[in-house]
Amino acid sequence: MSLNPQERHRDTSQDARYGAIFSQREPFRLESGAVLPSLDIAYTASGRLNAGRTNAILVCHALTGNAHASDALLPGGKTISGWFNGVIGPALGLDTGRFCVICSNILGSCYGTTGPTSVNPATGEPYRMTFPQMTVRDMVRVQKLLLEHLGVRRLVTVIGGSLGGMQALEWALMYPEMVGSIVPIATAAAHSPWCIGISETQRLAIMNDPAWEEGNYAVQPERGLAIARGIAMISYRSQASFANRFERKTIAPGDGHERVHVFDEIPLSFAVQSYLRYQGQKLAGRFDANTYIYLTRAMDFHDVSTGRGSLKEVLGTISARVLAIGISSDVLYPPGEQKRIASAIPGAAYAELDSPHGHDAFLIEFDTMNSLLRNFLAAVPPYS
Amino acid sequence: MSLNPQERHRDTSQDARYGAIFSQREPFRLESGAVLPSLDIAYTASGRLNAGRTNAILVCHALTGNAHASDALLPGGKTISGWFNGVIGPALGLDTGRFCVICSNILGSCYGTTGPTSVNPATGEPYRMTFPQMTVRDMVRVQKLLLEHLGVRRLVTVIGGSLGGMQALEWALMYPEMVGSIVPIATAAAHSPWCIGISETQRLAIMNDPAWEEGNYAVQPERGLAIARGIAMISYRSQASFANRFERKTIAPGDGHERVHVFDEIPLSFAVQSYLRYQGQKLAGRFDANTYIYLTRAMDFHDVSTGRGSLKEVLGTISARVLAIGISSDVLYPPGEQKRIASAIPGAAYAELDSPHGHDAFLIEFDTMNSLLRNFLAAVPPYS
Repeated sequence: MSLNPQERHRDTSQDARYGAIFSQREPFRLESGAVLPSLDIAYTASGRLNAGRTNAILVCHALTGNAHASDALLPGGKTISGWFNGVIGPALGLDTGRFCVICSNILGSCYGTTGPTSVNPATGEPYRMTFPQMTVRDMVRVQKLLLEHLGVRRLVTVIGGSLGGMQALEWALMYPEMVGSIVPIATAAAHSPWCIGISETQRLAIMNDPAWEEGNYAVQPERGLAIARGIAMISYRSQASFANRFERKTIAPGDGHERVHVFDEIPLSFAVQSYLRYQGQKLAGRFDANTYIYLTRAMDFHDVSTGRGSLKEVLGTISARVLAIGISSDVLYPPGEQKRIASAIPGAAYAELDSPHGHDAFLIEFDTMNSLLRNFLAAVPPYS
Repeated sequence: MSLNPQERHRDTSQDARYGAIFSQREPFRLESGAVLPSLDIAYTASGRLNAGRTNAILVCHALTGNAHASDALLPGGKTISGWFNGVIGPALGLDTGRFCVICSNILGSCYGTTGPTSVNPATGEPYRMTFPQMTVRDMVRVQKLLLEHLGVRRLVTVIGGSLGGMQALEWALMYPEMVGSIVPIATAAAHSPWCIGISETQRLAIMNDPAWEEGNYAVQPERGLAIARGIAMISYRSQASFANRFERKTIAPGDGHERVHVFDEIPLSFAVQSYLRYQGQKLAGRFDANTYIYLTRAMDFHDVSTGRGSLKEVLGTISARVLAIGISSDVLYPPGEQKRIASAIPGAAYAELDSPHGHDAFLIEFDTMNSLLRNFLAAVPPYS
């Protein structure tokens, strides 16, 4: 992939963990009016950008995701398994033989892009809870900066699930001239009060952990973050998927329960408890608690109608081709949310993943996803 | 209501807050083998027990409920609003002109019946986390003791929602000769892994509150309990009910947010956040955190098949008339759970509350509940 010649105040480096890092040492003003003195944007690309730079697809990640949508080989030989690898590759739904698939870590996250864990150049200390609250629109503007840097002026499609789908919708509204189509999946045009409530309990669980220390922790409030993740995992799956997977299986000492040290002294009886603790501990080992607070807040503030008109009118202005994908068992963003999006956007198509796996099905049901994406992108003319 | 003459080791007193208290100063052995040296059982009764003591209905309460199913007038003139008052009364679904409606605080709760907040006679200190883990079957056996004391040998029906429905099912299995019918509502024959997971996150939120102090708090871990209640409240309602009630309404300073002091320094933006914090604070003001841990565990252990056979076979042995009531929007115990109960029990009827209010609809949709109960109980012969 070819990059623009280095610009003033800009450079691109590599961070083995996060992908390429595009750094802009110019102020960036957020929607709130707050100004970040500089920005790092971590990103990856799979497939080749064509000469006209017209074959790019932007993949937008969800809450705890990162730029590694595709598998990556790190310098030391370690491989990273991409979170969307089942649909990105030669002849897959996002066909890297045809398209250049770009994914960047979103503003405010902790995987290479500027966020609460970054050092504030003004103080030399990490921002932590002094980071300004960013919005989904800010995330999109940061992605736009990156694409400008890469010389990409037109996107074949913007695709994402959950928080990623919120970005896709904002892309179609903020930069209609750049966006040929969008594929919002398992998302909402405006975050529902039910979802806000679920986020709220998660944030409170983090902030009530004595280790949080108003965000000034030296060591993660891992229990609080693990509880938040547990709440989230329940909402990402479904009654049926939990029933199939765990039934009422119990845990005996030595059963694998020993993997979960984070709540070690608190007894447990059922496999599902062990699973949730393990998932919580795993997230606490890879994600930052303050970042979790900021990103869930950004989701709660997401509402495409804000400052633009009524939700229906605003969606009605979207000119991009749209494939809205709902998931039959999604508790967080039920099919009705995706149908509402599709019905308000002229010419938009709606497709439903019939899956028992709940919200996370878009990260699981890759066969159906590939088939939907292949059909949707078949209409796109071939690029050299 | 007439009571048995006082028995040896037994007496009945009044506690203005909790109703009548039946005390048995004899050991009570739990399912686990642990022994409680004595028992208090708080209860109320509405309507008159007939001469043959054959017109009693037992109402079983849910997780944070108490014996006050009906409205009560306290000595000082204060009134208590009964949690099931919309269906208990003259000519209502549970017609106090025909029936004597009895409700007792369950074993392990904190409203007058022996539980973690009670003083352990062996130590003179509250049991706290040394209370033995009780089960739904233990709760039912304690209710049976109370009914024996009251001279009731036959119940017209046992009715309850959620944890109350679990008790109703166990009643039909443990004391078939006493139970004419049961009305399990919005409940499960065995607690699902999804529900166990939701309970688990709530318990961890309590136990991770530094104020919990392994259960030995002088002052409630009110934040932890409030978070638990917030998680629960989300699961008790539905996407649609939250959407209707809160939309994306925001909170401005002075908007009523000041009612919620428990998370005072943590900013909030949306009405739904304020609602959840307020509900959490309210519960923390009236319920005990350790008790919450014990009762949710009892729900998790609930499985009518334990020690008896397969779930289907066990339900198939129920001889009582059964009306299983499901709620269309129940996230915790979806209609499928009630249908499974009804289809496995010979002759059982299934009815569905079509309501947007989620799990809590049985405490809200009193018109439909009354009509269902009137029809179901119409077959019962009149008692003098």
